[in-house]
Amino acid sequence: MIDLSTISTRPPKGLTKKKAQAKTKKLAERIGELQRLMMGQGKHSLLVIFQGMDASGKDGAVKKVFAEVPANGIKVHSFKKPSDEEFAHDFLWRVHKQCPGKGMIQVFNRSHYEDILIQRVHGWITEAHVKKRMAAINAFEDLLQFDNNTLVLKFYLHLSKEQQVLELRERIEDPEKHWKHNDGDWEEREHWDKYRKCYNYILNKSKIPWTIVPVDERWYRDLIVAQTIVDKLESLEMQYPPLKSEMFSDG
Amino acid sequence: MIDLSTISTRPPKGLTKKKAQAKTKKLAERIGELQRLMMGQGKHSLLVIFQGMDASGKDGAVKKVFAEVPANGIKVHSFKKPSDEEFAHDFLWRVHKQCPGKGMIQVFNRSHYEDILIQRVHGWITEAHVKKRMAAINAFEDLLQFDNNTLVLKFYLHLSKEQQVLELRERIEDPEKHWKHNDGDWEEREHWDKYRKCYNYILNKSKIPWTIVPVDERWYRDLIVAQTIVDKLESLEMQYPPLKSEMFSDG
Repeated sequence: MIDLSTISTRPPKGLTKKKAQAKTKKLAERIGELQRLMMGQGKHSLLVIFQGMDASGKDGAVKKVFAEVPANGIKVHSFKKPSDEEFAHDFLWRVHKQCPGKGMIQVFNRSHYEDILIQRVHGWITEAHVKKRMAAINAFEDLLQFDNNTLVLKFYLHLSKEQQVLELRERIEDPEKHWKHNDGDWEEREHWDKYRKCYNYILNKSKIPWTIVPVDERWYRDLIVAQTIVDKLESLEMQYPPLKSEMFSDG
Repeated sequence: MIDLSTISTRPPKGLTKKKAQAKTKKLAERIGELQRLMMGQGKHSLLVIFQGMDASGKDGAVKKVFAEVPANGIKVHSFKKPSDEEFAHDFLWRVHKQCPGKGMIQVFNRSHYEDILIQRVHGWITEAHVKKRMAAINAFEDLLQFDNNTLVLKFYLHLSKEQQVLELRERIEDPEKHWKHNDGDWEEREHWDKYRKCYNYILNKSKIPWTIVPVDERWYRDLIVAQTIVDKLESLEMQYPPLKSEMFSDG
């Protein structure tokens, strides 16, 4: 039973920022190599989902971790308020469209989990409906795996309430971050406990487990996310295919 | 337990073609009215799936049954061999995209069931994979219903092997039907028993039940499909919404 209130949002003692950043840099390079291998083999794809409270550093994680992946090997989609057309369909309709084809990395900045979170916090759907959506999500993520060899990696960016206020305040103070400021974030902060409860629900009911990433220090966030992606991709034991040619063949 | 070999492909005795056609015409008009009501209310949508052996009359059913639905209220999608992009995704990816928005009728001429049928007949996927796909289909159709009020109506067009040969031969003899001829249909006909077995599997494992439509006489096919659609749409008890206006209001 996962309970976020018992899990630290800070890095472990002993690890230095400098050391972590050097390691992250190497891991980011390795992710670039692994995407190329994935493309070459044409068998697998990777879906990376980032969820977390406002200002938990989703954009920053994408920037750092995928720094070495060429733009033609990765797509990032940020899920915002649904359009009229999206709203006229089931909640997974717009999500399914964005799922990765073989060889590709797809990143979700927020995701279908918002359709449980925000809906539940504001009481827009019933508890029975929440349960059905959770079951639908599990079936959906299962489909991506068994039918298209999609590796689904989900990261919960675990931020403290104290650090959130610092991050949100920076958006007011730093002119280069003004564009990220949104009065609504301060209102949503009032619902912190409700969101926390929903996240506990999601973390416990998801069939594919989440990686809970302490993000109060951004450098530690990057290290954990990058390390997890490298480990999981390497476990696929991907191989470049042999040359297919009638003109140039060893055989 | 459904066993297609025990179910007639012919209309019941006593019903005349003339009487059936007159009734179908009225039902088709009613379907037009009901689509308009569905659009007005903006709550429900309708997905109609046609499956059946080659030459079982899928195109003809679409033409007759939806004759009175305006073109802006209906979309028809024929699923053919997947494109490279579609093939690089899970089998429901291209299907989900085509699902109806609120107020709309979407017709599938063939569907995700082909990804069990043709794959299984030719042994391109394992039995274990077939079972997973069947479970994924049930979860998927369930999602359309509970999360978007989509009425999912599935019609199996039940044709005899004897009638199929007559229909296929007509495509060779009638110059206006040459374009429908495909040598491959005659090859697939060799697999009749395997397809039959797969259809029995699908009809028994589907959570949302199928309507089995005897189609050796096309006029009976049209009557049954149209009647089923009208009955199911009427059971939704749809209502036009009241006037929303601050200028022109009764209240």
